[in-house]
Amino acid sequence: MSVPIIESLTTTEPLSELFTDASVLRAMLEFEVALARAESKLGVIPVGAADAIAAAADPAAFEVEALSRDALRAGTPSIPLVKRLTALVRSRDEAAAGFVHLGATSQDVSDTALILLLQCAQRLIEADLTRVEQALITFSEKHSNTVMLGRTLLQPALPITLGLKAAGWFGAIRRNHERLSQTFAEALTLQFGGAAGTLAALEDLGVGVAERLPVELGIACPDAPWHTHRDRLAALVCACGVTAGSLGKIARDISLLMQAEVAEAAEPESHGRGGSSTMPHKRNPIGCAVTIAAANRVPGLVSTYLSSMVQEQERSLGGVQAEWSTIAAVSQATGLAAASIAEIVEGLTVDTDRMQQNIDSTQGTIYAERAMILLAPAIGRDRAHLLLEEAARLAVTQ
Amino acid sequence: MSVPIIESLTTTEPLSELFTDASVLRAMLEFEVALARAESKLGVIPVGAADAIAAAADPAAFEVEALSRDALRAGTPSIPLVKRLTALVRSRDEAAAGFVHLGATSQDVSDTALILLLQCAQRLIEADLTRVEQALITFSEKHSNTVMLGRTLLQPALPITLGLKAAGWFGAIRRNHERLSQTFAEALTLQFGGAAGTLAALEDLGVGVAERLPVELGIACPDAPWHTHRDRLAALVCACGVTAGSLGKIARDISLLMQAEVAEAAEPESHGRGGSSTMPHKRNPIGCAVTIAAANRVPGLVSTYLSSMVQEQERSLGGVQAEWSTIAAVSQATGLAAASIAEIVEGLTVDTDRMQQNIDSTQGTIYAERAMILLAPAIGRDRAHLLLEEAARLAVTQ
Amino acid sequence: MSVPIIESLTTTEPLSELFTDASVLRAMLEFEVALARAESKLGVIPVGAADAIAAAADPAAFEVEALSRDALRAGTPSIPLVKRLTALVRSRDEAAAGFVHLGATSQDVSDTALILLLQCAQRLIEADLTRVEQALITFSEKHSNTVMLGRTLLQPALPITLGLKAAGWFGAIRRNHERLSQTFAEALTLQFGGAAGTLAALEDLGVGVAERLPVELGIACPDAPWHTHRDRLAALVCACGVTAGSLGKIARDISLLMQAEVAEAAEPESHGRGGSSTMPHKRNPIGCAVTIAAANRVPGLVSTYLSSMVQEQERSLGGVQAEWSTIAAVSQATGLAAASIAEIVEGLTVDTDRMQQNIDSTQGTIYAERAMILLAPAIGRDRAHLLLEEAARLAVTQ
Amino acid sequence: MSVPIIESLTTTEPLSELFTDASVLRAMLEFEVALARAESKLGVIPVGAADAIAAAADPAAFEVEALSRDALRAGTPSIPLVKRLTALVRSRDEAAAGFVHLGATSQDVSDTALILLLQCAQRLIEADLTRVEQALITFSEKHSNTVMLGRTLLQPALPITLGLKAAGWFGAIRRNHERLSQTFAEALTLQFGGAAGTLAALEDLGVGVAERLPVELGIACPDAPWHTHRDRLAALVCACGVTAGSLGKIARDISLLMQAEVAEAAEPESHGRGGSSTMPHKRNPIGCAVTIAAANRVPGLVSTYLSSMVQEQERSLGGVQAEWSTIAAVSQATGLAAASIAEIVEGLTVDTDRMQQNIDSTQGTIYAERAMILLAPAIGRDRAHLLLEEAARLAVTQ
Repeated sequence: MSVPIIESLTTTEPLSELFTDASVLRAMLEFEVALARAESKLGVIPVGAADAIAAAADPAAFEVEALSRDALRAGTPSIPLVKRLTALVRSRDEAAAGFVHLGATSQDVSDTALILLLQCAQRLIEADLTRVEQALITFSEKHSNTVMLGRTLLQPALPITLGLKAAGWFGAIRRNHERLSQTFAEALTLQFGGAAGTLAALEDLGVGVAERLPVELGIACPDAPWHTHRDRLAALVCACGVTAGSLGKIARDISLLMQAEVAEAAEPESHGRGGSSTMPHKRNPIGCAVTIAAANRVPGLVSTYLSSMVQEQERSLGGVQAEWSTIAAVSQATGLAAASIAEIVEGLTVDTDRMQQNIDSTQGTIYAERAMILLAPAIGRDRAHLLLEEAARLAVTQ
Repeated sequence: MSVPIIESLTTTEPLSELFTDASVLRAMLEFEVALARAESKLGVIPVGAADAIAAAADPAAFEVEALSRDALRAGTPSIPLVKRLTALVRSRDEAAAGFVHLGATSQDVSDTALILLLQCAQRLIEADLTRVEQALITFSEKHSNTVMLGRTLLQPALPITLGLKAAGWFGAIRRNHERLSQTFAEALTLQFGGAAGTLAALEDLGVGVAERLPVELGIACPDAPWHTHRDRLAALVCACGVTAGSLGKIARDISLLMQAEVAEAAEPESHGRGGSSTMPHKRNPIGCAVTIAAANRVPGLVSTYLSSMVQEQERSLGGVQAEWSTIAAVSQATGLAAASIAEIVEGLTVDTDRMQQNIDSTQGTIYAERAMILLAPAIGRDRAHLLLEEAARLAVTQ
Repeated sequence: MSVPIIESLTTTEPLSELFTDASVLRAMLEFEVALARAESKLGVIPVGAADAIAAAADPAAFEVEALSRDALRAGTPSIPLVKRLTALVRSRDEAAAGFVHLGATSQDVSDTALILLLQCAQRLIEADLTRVEQALITFSEKHSNTVMLGRTLLQPALPITLGLKAAGWFGAIRRNHERLSQTFAEALTLQFGGAAGTLAALEDLGVGVAERLPVELGIACPDAPWHTHRDRLAALVCACGVTAGSLGKIARDISLLMQAEVAEAAEPESHGRGGSSTMPHKRNPIGCAVTIAAANRVPGLVSTYLSSMVQEQERSLGGVQAEWSTIAAVSQATGLAAASIAEIVEGLTVDTDRMQQNIDSTQGTIYAERAMILLAPAIGRDRAHLLLEEAARLAVTQ
Repeated sequence: MSVPIIESLTTTEPLSELFTDASVLRAMLEFEVALARAESKLGVIPVGAADAIAAAADPAAFEVEALSRDALRAGTPSIPLVKRLTALVRSRDEAAAGFVHLGATSQDVSDTALILLLQCAQRLIEADLTRVEQALITFSEKHSNTVMLGRTLLQPALPITLGLKAAGWFGAIRRNHERLSQTFAEALTLQFGGAAGTLAALEDLGVGVAERLPVELGIACPDAPWHTHRDRLAALVCACGVTAGSLGKIARDISLLMQAEVAEAAEPESHGRGGSSTMPHKRNPIGCAVTIAAANRVPGLVSTYLSSMVQEQERSLGGVQAEWSTIAAVSQATGLAAASIAEIVEGLTVDTDRMQQNIDSTQGTIYAERAMILLAPAIGRDRAHLLLEEAARLAVTQ
């Protein structure tokens, strides 16, 4: 299964795979099977019915083309899925068909399936963030004494060390990783409330099923259904957004350092990366480009998710229906940015000679602040500033 | 080819089909073939080479999985496409291989392919807008005397006619359709500039090829390449955004009228639409839900596109790489909203009795403005306002 | 000092006041004075110089008109502020003028001033969230047995209780409040790094000053300067965004319940709220309108902030310059939404009779799910569903 | 009246002035006076009443502090404005008080006032766009033969001319200017529909007043009121967004050329611009920074406006209330970007020697494409590409 060409620059392969039909179907069926199991354990439905449901829940038995088409008519993929599953169960066990999806509502399936998918996304994204962190620790230690120009507003400022710069990158990624872990932990909870969030169809056994179900699925049990309260998912989407922003910042820094005229650092050369279709001499910062593109795309997707939070009563009209593709896109973009930066920082090349040359070519003007501070007690900080401003202008125009 | 389940609520089938691998490949190859044809007509390359290129440009000969994977490495699908096409040409005609993609740059292929795809999108979207307009003309004429409550801030205001309301919807769609046509016409132009936008590789013949190429492709010829000047596409994306907003407004109106407690109008019943997975009595406004979801998604995508406009020098680093999926998503969402509203307004049912009942149940308080105007000359507009405010309160609380 | 009319629906008065010139100036000067104090305590500058700086740092001595104009020329308000402060100090103590702003950079002032302002914003916003929580606890307990229609996709679903609905609102606000407190705690840290984030100008004493300064200011000390690492502020902006979304959801629910045709709940009547300029009978849900407007505005502002995170090297070109007004607008909108919902839920009126009538008017069709579940074991869940779908249609159309 | 410091980097002074209380009040009162004049001319109200209203409509007689506070309670500034105006009229002419605001609704005032303000904004923004265009025409002609490096993905590509680059900038601004003019022309229309958009209060004379009123105000007359159909304003907001994007692109280009390591072009030096608070040697591209900041802010504001388009029935609940500050911010940001780029391109300095040096320092590798094209017929385009890729690598690493 490949990434569609139209989306080839928006996701890693594993994160693309995660949201394919097969994977989405599997997650939805996982919910239905776990529901039947939980209900059979509590005596709500016969054990045999749960077995029949589990046996019928084979993704290969679903025609995805019809299911997708019917989903648009129904406003949710859950309705055609339950219909087809029921038919499959009936063909095995007539009586069991009556127990499919018992007590659940469409959004219980679709939301919980999404949570199961995000559980996998977490593993993928965090693994690459860990790679970034480890590479940056090594890199910043190695370059703790590598002096280079600090640049502010794209102009030479004062010398810094490359180690300090890399430590700044590391700190941001470390904080983002922690926030992501925390928001994933908060968001990965079961959705199960039935038609209006009251579990009414299951009467006294509703709460029991609601507590058993997440155990079957390996996710947390919330204090209440959250059909129209999307704050936990929103916080997760936002944490992805902030992470993508920090990864984009690293990409921008490196791509600026990689300019031919600066040439202080470069993305690693690697298979298929960086060439041009027409210019044989090009070595393009493709990892950076792809990361910045991700950081460009995520903010708009975050705002879409936040806009969709204003949902009506017990089930939204137009809010929740916009969510699946948005959340998939956000996690794919964030994961791609993490994987791209991991590859880059693991192989980042540095030209320390060029760093020194670039400092030298400022002709000492970058020490003007130091000179000003030394002069300040004698002639005042502002007069020293004016004097050195003039001196710097002369130095550059000579 | 079906719509992926994860995106089943985000697009119509034809607009999904438009951005599949087969369709995207076809558009990219169309550019390469047209380029070869144009160049052979101007004597830049041999006619036989153009024939060989045209013969080799068979989408079925491309492995999309590898192409998509290589696209992410290369930062563009154009590089692996050109590489594969060259190999295919070579296997037919060794000499012709040297003439593939001659004088073009990667972005010439990817941008022009996008333009060719958008040309199809235009037909699909505008056809549904035309349906909306035609249905609304008929509907507003039919209901030019159907009296109903006007509602402001979701509260009863004054009587209006349903015809007036529908005419308002029509006016907005009409204006949007015109703006869309105009921005499509402006945006559907060739991209062709070569490596740095100068057509340098083709020397004196560059301009000739640039003028011949759009004729082959049936699109307009711009005054200059626009690799990092995305304003025409941005204007098109924005026109989609405004259209989606106007369609969303219609959907919101209808879904509010369809509330059981209001019950003045309803989406048509139709195959597979409006049911619930658990509540047999439900008749949900799914067409409205899907439209509002589209209107929720588009603004964030528009902001992504606008953010990406700040592109570097002659080819962007992270701006253009974010565009394909964004533009595809915007056109799909807009098209889905248009198709959904077309279906709704073509079959919209109206309950005129209920409209009258809802007016009656306001107990005449909605005529307070009229009373105020009659009283104003005698006691002053503001005193009349206060008096009637009090009267209305009594009427409602009785 | 009043809220500008153009922004009259975007902020509370205290949050407007917080970002006035007087308040912003005060925060910037607070930084400069604390810096001088910290430096004098560590012997970097004479105690007398710190006294002179503190004495000169009087907001009233600054011409805001000139300062604002010069800020646009300089790209930051810090440069004209430091210039003017230096002149004021010189007029008191010639020697002390050389010690103003020593070792700091413009962004140290502007960022730390922003942090000091956000410290106040936190108190204001959280106080209103606490009001919302307290009112909702009381309200949901009071209505734990008040039965009403649950509504999904704006259609009658099953009965729920008003207490359950309010508990859902409460849960979301509680979680948001916690996330906000956490992100404020993380974000409220000193910015102090000097020209390139290395504190170079202060040599060996830099770290000492950096540790002393936050103590003077009552904020936290970060492990490193964060001039171009905006993730902590971004996380805070996002937490505001999620909170505004949850508040908007409450507003949408209440405004829908307040429709004349539903009439189950209403915003409290209060001075100046809810009238119309022309219709004396109107009682508009203005608190809800203002809250939804805030929830509409915040997502775009969040995306702006996230987009601006991709900042260059040691000081950004165009990223950080966009932040002040964005952060002010986000905190004002969130605070206004919190204050509006607090006022609403503290005085929310409920019509329990109408709630029962609205249930009754569904003619029992809302119990169809229950009937289906009872029938399912006998005739199968899907056949029961079809049967009851038909029954519901007959009931409604009678 | 100065720009608030918190917004000092977000607007020009004239565009800040445009949205001050005095200016907003003036526009609102202009509507009320024109309404009275139009109504008196048609005999709806006495001429004396119109005179009294005109005489009372003095901005200085309004307490903005109270008006702004009451606006938040009322959900619109129009209600307190009409109340105060009525009182002022009464104190002059008891009878005339009954004729204030006759037949109009709050949104008629607020929307038309906004249109009047935007009419001024148009003049300000377009004047600066004209400056940009004129400067770029001259500049691109002057540099039609100035050879410089074209850069793609921030890497050296092929030589281009500076004139070509500037012509690209010009083309984008020219197109944007045209789109802006067109959308302004379409959007600058009267809002006048009364309580529910039917002009009911004026009976037979409604249409006459609606046709007379725009003549009084110097704006266009729409075919129908547009209270909840915001597409024309949305199109205008979008046109600003696209323009800001194109201006941001110019700013990014220039700021990259101005890097010390590139040094091919520079913003003009001018009073107060480009210095640092601590580094005397700095010459910062502040005009570019401010422009990029504007281009960063506008996309989120555009998405806010588009999100707010999904408005309810005859008057929105939370959509329109979000608009004023958003539209003000968009026009201010666009105007600031236009003014900043105008200042920059009018004084842009160029270092043609450095341009040649930067070409030379690529060691001829940039001619690899040319070499490949010459070699292609002999050895094939792809083999030539591989060969020259290797050659370029050797040239650079020597």
